[in-house]
Amino acid sequence: MDASLVADLFRQIDALPIVDIHTHIDWQRPTARNIGDILSYHYYTELTHSAEAQPGESPEERFPFGDSEQLTRAIWNKLPLIGNTVQYDWLMTISREYLGLPAGAWREPDGWQSVFRRSVEVMDRPEWGAQLLEQSHIRRVMLTNRYDEDIDGLDEALFSPCLRTESFLHGIHDSAEREQMAAFLERPLRQVADVVAIIDKAVACFCDHGMAYAALSTTVNMRTFFVAEEEAQRLLDRVNEGVALDAQGLEAWNAYALARVCDACRRHGKPFHLMVGVNRNTYAHGVPSGMDLFDSLNSLSGFDYLFNAYPDVSFPTSVLADTTGLELTAAAWIRHNVFPSGHWWYSNQPIDIARELRRRLDVVPRNKLIGYYSDAYYLEFVLPKFRMYKFELAMALAERMERSKIHPNMEPMTRDDALDLAQEMLITNPLCILGLPSLPHPSGS
Amino acid sequence: MDASLVADLFRQIDALPIVDIHTHIDWQRPTARNIGDILSYHYYTELTHSAEAQPGESPEERFPFGDSEQLTRAIWNKLPLIGNTVQYDWLMTISREYLGLPAGAWREPDGWQSVFRRSVEVMDRPEWGAQLLEQSHIRRVMLTNRYDEDIDGLDEALFSPCLRTESFLHGIHDSAEREQMAAFLERPLRQVADVVAIIDKAVACFCDHGMAYAALSTTVNMRTFFVAEEEAQRLLDRVNEGVALDAQGLEAWNAYALARVCDACRRHGKPFHLMVGVNRNTYAHGVPSGMDLFDSLNSLSGFDYLFNAYPDVSFPTSVLADTTGLELTAAAWIRHNVFPSGHWWYSNQPIDIARELRRRLDVVPRNKLIGYYSDAYYLEFVLPKFRMYKFELAMALAERMERSKIHPNMEPMTRDDALDLAQEMLITNPLCILGLPSLPHPSGS
Amino acid sequence: MDASLVADLFRQIDALPIVDIHTHIDWQRPTARNIGDILSYHYYTELTHSAEAQPGESPEERFPFGDSEQLTRAIWNKLPLIGNTVQYDWLMTISREYLGLPAGAWREPDGWQSVFRRSVEVMDRPEWGAQLLEQSHIRRVMLTNRYDEDIDGLDEALFSPCLRTESFLHGIHDSAEREQMAAFLERPLRQVADVVAIIDKAVACFCDHGMAYAALSTTVNMRTFFVAEEEAQRLLDRVNEGVALDAQGLEAWNAYALARVCDACRRHGKPFHLMVGVNRNTYAHGVPSGMDLFDSLNSLSGFDYLFNAYPDVSFPTSVLADTTGLELTAAAWIRHNVFPSGHWWYSNQPIDIARELRRRLDVVPRNKLIGYYSDAYYLEFVLPKFRMYKFELAMALAERMERSKIHPNMEPMTRDDALDLAQEMLITNPLCILGLPSLPHPSGS
Repeated sequence: MDASLVADLFRQIDALPIVDIHTHIDWQRPTARNIGDILSYHYYTELTHSAEAQPGESPEERFPFGDSEQLTRAIWNKLPLIGNTVQYDWLMTISREYLGLPAGAWREPDGWQSVFRRSVEVMDRPEWGAQLLEQSHIRRVMLTNRYDEDIDGLDEALFSPCLRTESFLHGIHDSAEREQMAAFLERPLRQVADVVAIIDKAVACFCDHGMAYAALSTTVNMRTFFVAEEEAQRLLDRVNEGVALDAQGLEAWNAYALARVCDACRRHGKPFHLMVGVNRNTYAHGVPSGMDLFDSLNSLSGFDYLFNAYPDVSFPTSVLADTTGLELTAAAWIRHNVFPSGHWWYSNQPIDIARELRRRLDVVPRNKLIGYYSDAYYLEFVLPKFRMYKFELAMALAERMERSKIHPNMEPMTRDDALDLAQEMLITNPLCILGLPSLPHPSGS
Repeated sequence: MDASLVADLFRQIDALPIVDIHTHIDWQRPTARNIGDILSYHYYTELTHSAEAQPGESPEERFPFGDSEQLTRAIWNKLPLIGNTVQYDWLMTISREYLGLPAGAWREPDGWQSVFRRSVEVMDRPEWGAQLLEQSHIRRVMLTNRYDEDIDGLDEALFSPCLRTESFLHGIHDSAEREQMAAFLERPLRQVADVVAIIDKAVACFCDHGMAYAALSTTVNMRTFFVAEEEAQRLLDRVNEGVALDAQGLEAWNAYALARVCDACRRHGKPFHLMVGVNRNTYAHGVPSGMDLFDSLNSLSGFDYLFNAYPDVSFPTSVLADTTGLELTAAAWIRHNVFPSGHWWYSNQPIDIARELRRRLDVVPRNKLIGYYSDAYYLEFVLPKFRMYKFELAMALAERMERSKIHPNMEPMTRDDALDLAQEMLITNPLCILGLPSLPHPSGS
Repeated sequence: MDASLVADLFRQIDALPIVDIHTHIDWQRPTARNIGDILSYHYYTELTHSAEAQPGESPEERFPFGDSEQLTRAIWNKLPLIGNTVQYDWLMTISREYLGLPAGAWREPDGWQSVFRRSVEVMDRPEWGAQLLEQSHIRRVMLTNRYDEDIDGLDEALFSPCLRTESFLHGIHDSAEREQMAAFLERPLRQVADVVAIIDKAVACFCDHGMAYAALSTTVNMRTFFVAEEEAQRLLDRVNEGVALDAQGLEAWNAYALARVCDACRRHGKPFHLMVGVNRNTYAHGVPSGMDLFDSLNSLSGFDYLFNAYPDVSFPTSVLADTTGLELTAAAWIRHNVFPSGHWWYSNQPIDIARELRRRLDVVPRNKLIGYYSDAYYLEFVLPKFRMYKFELAMALAERMERSKIHPNMEPMTRDDALDLAQEMLITNPLCILGLPSLPHPSGS
């Protein structure tokens, strides 16, 4: 590692504006109000609970989620146990960059009170959101939205809504969800045409607010295949009669509904962002949002049908399992409509980012690489997460520059070449692949 | 790589006393008597046989296992073929450190005789065991013991028995094993209550001798699930009637018996160490203990039931397949009762250790990391194997220190920070997670 | 990375003659006639198509394959989109080394014409083939041949035919293929004995021309098992009656035919080279040879039967999925008849080569390592591909040398040690494992 080269590249890459193509930010309250909000992020509750089990009958009862101060206090004493983790490092970046508190402040006994106080001073101001955006050069933020979410009033220059589509798949089984869908559609979902209609209505409505893409996080080993309308109608009828679908019926319904989402993407010219391979609610004694895992046995081959059937739809794709990493790289290598997107969740840590990054850099066309997204719940997490990635990117590019000087097959790669590639991966490609307008300032064009 | 930093860290880490949480050492004869014993370790027989097939009708006949001198001679000429391997490097460490013979002695034509002679001089002395322990700073050694092994007289200050539980699962099918179980229980296993009783008797008996944990090496893709007592009884009845269980019956029996072991662990407050994913007796033409492989298709999801059903039992867990590495890391990341433990067998080599180590260091709470165990059959192997790991650990920590100086999210990591982490992984955590007393000397406290 | 050490090792390794144990080279036209031939290689058509979809109803229509100039023109403008890839780097090596054109020539607007012209000047000369072999030190080249290919006149000092055996497996289902087999055998394939006979005839015929080995690229998760002759006969009867075999029937036929190929290998003392785990024709909208992918869910365990049943047949083995990498390493570690061979297709890129290389170097006997093959369609690709590998090998060996200076278990590894290992992996082992004569010149002996 040439430390000064890495540091130099990092500084340049860190100066780029941020385009964050996937977050769970609430556009009506995009920032935290205090450090308790920050610590309520499942990474901190799950890691401290994992380090030393929290009591509590249910996930919600393990931490005092309703009381930011008490939550801070509950987590504080266990933070040293996770001081080795990258998630702790994110927290320290938030502390340093936004609260002006050095890491040492977190090691004071009973320091939680002064940290909490300071966090309120900074974060609980009306101008905090705008200031954070400015300070962190955050320019575009994609959201995660339900079909029936009221997104009127969204600042479309900053936020782009993205339609989460799980409801149209698994949701069909949940009577409360079906009622909500019926309310949104203003009629019950009786016919498969109603499902087509609700998807189309949602997409059209989102398009009015600058929709970026449709999105789905998939179960492990999801399979896609052609499902005839008649079969789908039979399945829907059964659901409407209150009969639970068996595994095969569920799989067929999901395949059907997924294809209908793709139809809508095609009609409206929108990409479909896939996040592949999560096992929900696996850990019974977890904390909220900290109960899901993945399975190393997960294949992308279940999407062959979909990728082939919709050559005119773009599929930015993330995978959760490290074992699907090269499979995604290979798909992006030959399939014109698959784009490797960021590094998701359990794979969003340095060593796996580093490997996937190098794979993609070596064999996927450069215009197809979507570098990173934060998956953040508050805007405060965008910067530290991007910095984690950007450091790995600087490492990979520095290594490439060094190798290129002696590699028999390569021309010397210059610092400018490296920074061009970084800018494409972080700004140009994401905007272009998602069909979003360029950034107004020249630095990001 | 900052070679001097790595070397410095390694020296410090190498000076730590050794706590070895999994071995196959025979407490009544813990050291080798000569180099032939050392070379009888399956790594040498399997590698030299793989390099150039040994004749022989059966695994036992490929090498003269009964004659240490002839075994040494048989392996000697093929050793250059495996001179590139880490296993050969272990051998050289044994030679240098214990026999005082440089690697060059192994390249002398017909040198086997003088090496053998020297090995007898050193190893075949009554004081050799104590001397080796002292020289290598080995302080605690966990064993692998059958339920019916006589462990009276065990030096509990050094050795802790660990109850291997395969017999209660697959063993039920083997009439000789069933007879031995009946002998141990002093009655035949007719009722499932008898199985509960034998497990409890074994655990209670082991607890009297400072039991560390129960242990199981699992088949590939083992599944755990609730099995009703009635069903288990039916399966046991069938076995007792001499009927072979089908695959489904076997799976159910294994799931049932495994849960009963967990019950006993719960009652006695002991951890259950899982070693996941081996295919036994795969290679028909192998050597003893050199016939097992793994399958890259192996999932931890089969243990979801068990991990959820026993939140109050600790599960130190090792995986054999590299493809299960991140799955284990993720489980240890969120599950409070899963602890990533060492690097097992085919994954116990530098490149895979390096990756798993970094993953765990980045996202698993530091108090949950069990660094390493040797899996050794003779105490002589403990040091070289630990050194292999400790070198990778020194590499990872040096890299972390270097990165921390320029990483935007990290505070500078000092040498002391790095060594603290190493000590936790190698001493504090293993002792604490297994509920063993601290080491008497301050260096290991 | 010690750049000067890597560069020094690379230079030495690059000076070694090339033994290329797997190519698709046409021995009657082994070199390209112009740069259009080079760009027709699927890596360039698939990557530029992936970067920006080519129009066209069928794979064949996406590019003007029949017109080298127009093909060059079609690909030219998209080349900057794949400028980051290793495949582009191969192209630049071809340009520099063979055409004498620097990379800059490829960035000239409309430069395609002058590049094309220059390529014709160089490549379309009768002496080009001999010149290229001399310049690139290519000494032995294994081919890929159909059983009925006329290989009379083959230059056996340079080329060795290798019998591709897919026809005897899947081909049995294809009536055109069955007719060709009947023509070759001079009688229809009615009895399983006819299948034995055609395999034997093909192998015998190939042996007359210096056959290196039989070869098969396998589908994902292929299983091998014993199939009785009677069952195979029933399957063959059904095929001959025009009945399509179901999945189980197909699997059984494949297992049967594969074993018969092994019988022939055994009789003729030839190895069987396996290339494991491809999904053919997965990408419907691809380009020719750019439609296949792999599945991360792929196990080697399906070959247990075969490896055990033919202990006297050598199986050089490549895997396509990164997830099968350690499984192959472990198989080669203990099985005497499995040899890890090169780095195939989607795994043939720097990061995955680097990992597999280190795994194999650390635990597989050195005499079993087959370093690399090019898989090339024209001789021009041999050098750039070998250089990609040789650079990774130089990196791994340099790292080993550096580590060995401070590693507690290792003796210092000298430059000569490193180069000896490289020569074994690249020359000695491949020739020895495939039973080919040594190279005439001392440098390669």
